[in-house]
Amino acid sequence: MTGGTGDLAARRAAVLGPAYRLFYAEPVEIVRGEGVWLWDAQGRRYLDGYNNVASVGHANPTVVEAISRQAGVLNTHTRYLHPLVVEYAERLVATMPAGLDTVMFTCTGSEANDLALRLVTMATGRSGVIVTRTAYHGVTAAIAALSPSLGLGVGPHVRVVDPPVGGTTAEGERFARDVAEAADELAGAGHPVAALLVDSVLSSDGLVPDPVGFLEWAAREVRSAGGVFIADEVQAGFGRTGRMWGFERHGVEPDVVTLGKPMGNGHPLAGVVLRRELAEPMAARTRYFNTFGGNPVSCAAGLAVLDVVARDQLVEHSARCGRRLSEGVREVASRHDGGVEVRGVGLYVAVELASGEAASAVVDGMRERGVLIAATGPGGRVLKIRPPLVIDDSGVDLLVGALDESLAELGGLGVNAGS
Amino acid sequence: MTGGTGDLAARRAAVLGPAYRLFYAEPVEIVRGEGVWLWDAQGRRYLDGYNNVASVGHANPTVVEAISRQAGVLNTHTRYLHPLVVEYAERLVATMPAGLDTVMFTCTGSEANDLALRLVTMATGRSGVIVTRTAYHGVTAAIAALSPSLGLGVGPHVRVVDPPVGGTTAEGERFARDVAEAADELAGAGHPVAALLVDSVLSSDGLVPDPVGFLEWAAREVRSAGGVFIADEVQAGFGRTGRMWGFERHGVEPDVVTLGKPMGNGHPLAGVVLRRELAEPMAARTRYFNTFGGNPVSCAAGLAVLDVVARDQLVEHSARCGRRLSEGVREVASRHDGGVEVRGVGLYVAVELASGEAASAVVDGMRERGVLIAATGPGGRVLKIRPPLVIDDSGVDLLVGALDESLAELGGLGVNAGS
Repeated sequence: MTGGTGDLAARRAAVLGPAYRLFYAEPVEIVRGEGVWLWDAQGRRYLDGYNNVASVGHANPTVVEAISRQAGVLNTHTRYLHPLVVEYAERLVATMPAGLDTVMFTCTGSEANDLALRLVTMATGRSGVIVTRTAYHGVTAAIAALSPSLGLGVGPHVRVVDPPVGGTTAEGERFARDVAEAADELAGAGHPVAALLVDSVLSSDGLVPDPVGFLEWAAREVRSAGGVFIADEVQAGFGRTGRMWGFERHGVEPDVVTLGKPMGNGHPLAGVVLRRELAEPMAARTRYFNTFGGNPVSCAAGLAVLDVVARDQLVEHSARCGRRLSEGVREVASRHDGGVEVRGVGLYVAVELASGEAASAVVDGMRERGVLIAATGPGGRVLKIRPPLVIDDSGVDLLVGALDESLAELGGLGVNAGS
Repeated sequence: MTGGTGDLAARRAAVLGPAYRLFYAEPVEIVRGEGVWLWDAQGRRYLDGYNNVASVGHANPTVVEAISRQAGVLNTHTRYLHPLVVEYAERLVATMPAGLDTVMFTCTGSEANDLALRLVTMATGRSGVIVTRTAYHGVTAAIAALSPSLGLGVGPHVRVVDPPVGGTTAEGERFARDVAEAADELAGAGHPVAALLVDSVLSSDGLVPDPVGFLEWAAREVRSAGGVFIADEVQAGFGRTGRMWGFERHGVEPDVVTLGKPMGNGHPLAGVVLRRELAEPMAARTRYFNTFGGNPVSCAAGLAVLDVVARDQLVEHSARCGRRLSEGVREVASRHDGGVEVRGVGLYVAVELASGEAASAVVDGMRERGVLIAATGPGGRVLKIRPPLVIDDSGVDLLVGALDESLAELGGLGVNAGS
């Protein structure tokens, strides 16, 4: 670390709230990005193997141009008519199952989940929510209360279920039964279930794509208990899984979908798509206005992202390139330890190591080799690999090669020794 | 209305959630902005007498350039080091009283108030909140529960106090006593007071700037009851009142300040500034991360706004030009009806009419004369006039002239007949 970066870290610690965290014991100061590449203040180039927000590539020229152009013309709010918010909302619903016909805009995924919860609470007259064991859905007070990964516990109206383990059909069925039981418990506790809220790839649970269909089986249970199914697509959406939406994998049609992260490629843009009838009870009681949500510049950014995804066939690319990534990672992992579990869907691959220390060592080893990734999941022992969707075969090979070397370096820690 | 605009309104109603509202019975389609001017789809120009978000002017070239440049270089998150988030946070705290030394970034004012509430709840171990009668602080579930203007009632941990009426010292003292009583009530109800949360200009209560000092008297009461004072500067901040911060008028040093709206001149940027010790209890229990909050593009926008405010001396301009606006509106109002109440602070003027219908008629009359304003406050009978800070004397005179004609046109409705 240079004096400059160290000084910056000290100034940062002094002025930003102490709850802020940095990646890496020696933080990296990123100053420039282009496509899948990031550069630090010392001019070193990194392959970005982590950031799912800049999904169509860092500083994507189409998105930058759309933001710059619209910012120079008009940025205002949704209490005046503007064609872009209408066009963008229409384009979004066109990518969804037919029943999901109504859009509301926010600026963050946290706000999207918070709004979804308000809508569903008013639509069902109920307050109970079921989430997964290590779920993360956002940082508002209401959403933090159903995000156990924040370490603050959950509210009395929340029940937590364990995600499927090992990808078997039996585990998917067990998950659905647990959802049904949680709904019964909530009813018994005076909080009848309003919603099952699940990240469609269970990202903060360590990435759980399998078995195919388990979200549909769980959705059936929550509906038969009188609740609705909310698919949190903040992580999975916009092509990450090799499909436009993560829920498609499971053949489930959600009642409500929440969107965020890659939606504006880094521009603060998020939202809720839902069935009209679920939006009406809130509308009968109160208005909705989000000062920045759905503004023309945000919608221009969102439209540009949809344009690039379509033009460059990034959904198909994510599926194809994701297979290469998954296969590469599996091959490498099997050479170092046959027991290590690799889970992948599209351009999102998780490698479950023996411990948080092992994961942390691999994350550091990758960084030394010029590749940025991170760890997540229970105990922080799951490597999280999810490069921008514009990564190509050579980028995938570089990433897999760095993983190979970093796993080899683990030595005594052993990738699966402690599990 | 042209067919185009009507068609757009119909498409909008079909795809956006039914809780969305539009200004005006015949909505206006705004397609371009520059400084204090807005243009509709038919090419008609309006003086913007309403929008406090584009505070340094619509499409301000300095802000647009900062956003475009940084978006083309890098947009990432706060888990990597970046100089702009540190520089911007330092610049913000330099504008505040010395004790307010710690910054946390969000994307919206709703998120800022939600985060402030989480911080304060964890710092005090208490949950009670005192707000004003027609307060609006945001749309998250937690903040909607203490925003009575949404029409949904308030939570059991919330008490509502009536704002001072008529600007007298006696009313300011009565307000402070009501805060003390509300704190007692909350303690008795098992929700000891964590915070008094007040918009520094009581915007949604119809704008209540006087008596000078009443927020300090109220803050003293809440502190002696063991709570803290949160100044919601989403409306008042960044020069609107002729001071940098609205709380300065009252000689009060808040424990927590929340920011939003004009902070990025329309770019989604908001945050919380607070005393370090109030941020630490949350940090001891959990992390804080907002994917888009404090990103380099948002910070570039925020820095550009601070630069323009300083370069063009907009705080001083707001004070001077605001006096001309207040005086002009008072003179016009007194000619039409001596009893009408005009309240003003900086470039924010409220005209209290006899009824919501009268206010609505004046808003429509102004629009016909090419000036956009809106109505707010209890019963929607308060005209809300708050042009971008870059309005000049001729803009003020145009606005006042249009108000004169619109009030004259009221005729039978009478500006104060029903009060």
